[in-house]
Amino acid sequence: MNPFASLDRVRVVMSHTTHPGNIGACARAMKVMGLSRLYLVNPRHFPSDEAVAMSSGAHDILDAAVLCDSLEAALAGTVAQAALTARRREMALPVREVRAAATELAQLLAGSPADVALVFGTESSGLTNEEVAMCSLPVTISTSDTYRSLNVAAAAQIMCHELRSAVASAPPSAQPAVDLAPHEGLESLYALIERLMLESGFLDRVNPGRAMPRLRRLFGRAGVESEELHLLMGALKAIGKQGPRQEGPDPLRGCAKTD
Amino acid sequence: MNPFASLDRVRVVMSHTTHPGNIGACARAMKVMGLSRLYLVNPRHFPSDEAVAMSSGAHDILDAAVLCDSLEAALAGTVAQAALTARRREMALPVREVRAAATELAQLLAGSPADVALVFGTESSGLTNEEVAMCSLPVTISTSDTYRSLNVAAAAQIMCHELRSAVASAPPSAQPAVDLAPHEGLESLYALIERLMLESGFLDRVNPGRAMPRLRRLFGRAGVESEELHLLMGALKAIGKQGPRQEGPDPLRGCAKTD
Repeated sequence: MNPFASLDRVRVVMSHTTHPGNIGACARAMKVMGLSRLYLVNPRHFPSDEAVAMSSGAHDILDAAVLCDSLEAALAGTVAQAALTARRREMALPVREVRAAATELAQLLAGSPADVALVFGTESSGLTNEEVAMCSLPVTISTSDTYRSLNVAAAAQIMCHELRSAVASAPPSAQPAVDLAPHEGLESLYALIERLMLESGFLDRVNPGRAMPRLRRLFGRAGVESEELHLLMGALKAIGKQGPRQEGPDPLRGCAKTD
Repeated sequence: MNPFASLDRVRVVMSHTTHPGNIGACARAMKVMGLSRLYLVNPRHFPSDEAVAMSSGAHDILDAAVLCDSLEAALAGTVAQAALTARRREMALPVREVRAAATELAQLLAGSPADVALVFGTESSGLTNEEVAMCSLPVTISTSDTYRSLNVAAAAQIMCHELRSAVASAPPSAQPAVDLAPHEGLESLYALIERLMLESGFLDRVNPGRAMPRLRRLFGRAGVESEELHLLMGALKAIGKQGPRQEGPDPLRGCAKTD
């Protein structure tokens, strides 16, 4: 079996990219490492001749890129999301070094049939705190202390290279495949918990404190399975006396295939 | 002590680069990983506004770049040379995967006070066989089987990232520093051996076979120290009855500091 087949389940998500050349360079960086699935959240210019020029023959990846109007839509269906970030900030989740993150993702790909995502922010300021909070795995690439200007396509090149290396050396999973809850399921859970906490008066609407980041950290660390998610949602709804269960949002809302 | 100080002894050598934008992108890739010493062997256009634009603030590396008229000149004084190559070819030396090469270079940097080089070829065809043969360490980066078009600055980004990672995790050398013979010293040795073998009739001038690549492989694997080099040169010259020892070429011949 091709050890790199699992790379077909890796989405590279570029959020609000300013320069189309970087989208093309990212497509090339992906393709040379055996990745193929590009998701673009509100790019400033796309499709673009500059992107095609910079893709250097990887235009098939640009042609197949999925345009999304929100990061949530791009992450729907993924069970792990690596958020590439250079900035120091108070993280809800512990930040992983790129190689450790790649190993973790490779193990996940081996043990689960679902998609994972690598998420990259804008050229000028990276991912917002809100975008990082939507991901399960904040990832940082070690750089010089005095010059941290890593180009977004160069960051993608490093991340894809590390993931390819990790996939090549990941032992085939001995454990049965785990049915992890998808991104949108967990977001529904967080939304439900937050609403219940607010309605119950446990959380102060004006000053909600660190409760939600802490809960995200807990569930993120645990790796919630689909059955557990259903259990949690059901139990919480019953406890909150929310009546009959409502369906969550359509996970594919906001995504369009380009052609 | 700063664990990354040894990166100051790493030369990034770009040979016959066609597009100045790639030189700028390479400077940025170096700087963000804490490398600073760029050597340019016969670049098509340099200095260049496009290089400055693509360097994104790493113009200090471009300003300090050393222009050379031969690869030999750029490698003079280095004790190890990693040749980045994608092509399959009959190598005199075993090809290392990029992470293994980075580990090897990091150990060398920890155990020797001398410079090492990372060598990159042209955009269209990479390094020539002759250029690879001048280096001690052919290195390859694993890519997709169906698309191998790794941009030269992206390759530099991966190599510099791997070297930074390896330097960060390399234990301080417990062994005394080794005085390895510099590149130009080994080249003099090879030139001497080849001449002696030809003059003696051992080698056929028209059909020299694989003797020289094999000897390069042997000495490359051994890691010749300066004292051993002097011994070999002296012994061979005496054996070949070459009379009084001649000085080798000036190691700085062909290098000019840009400003």
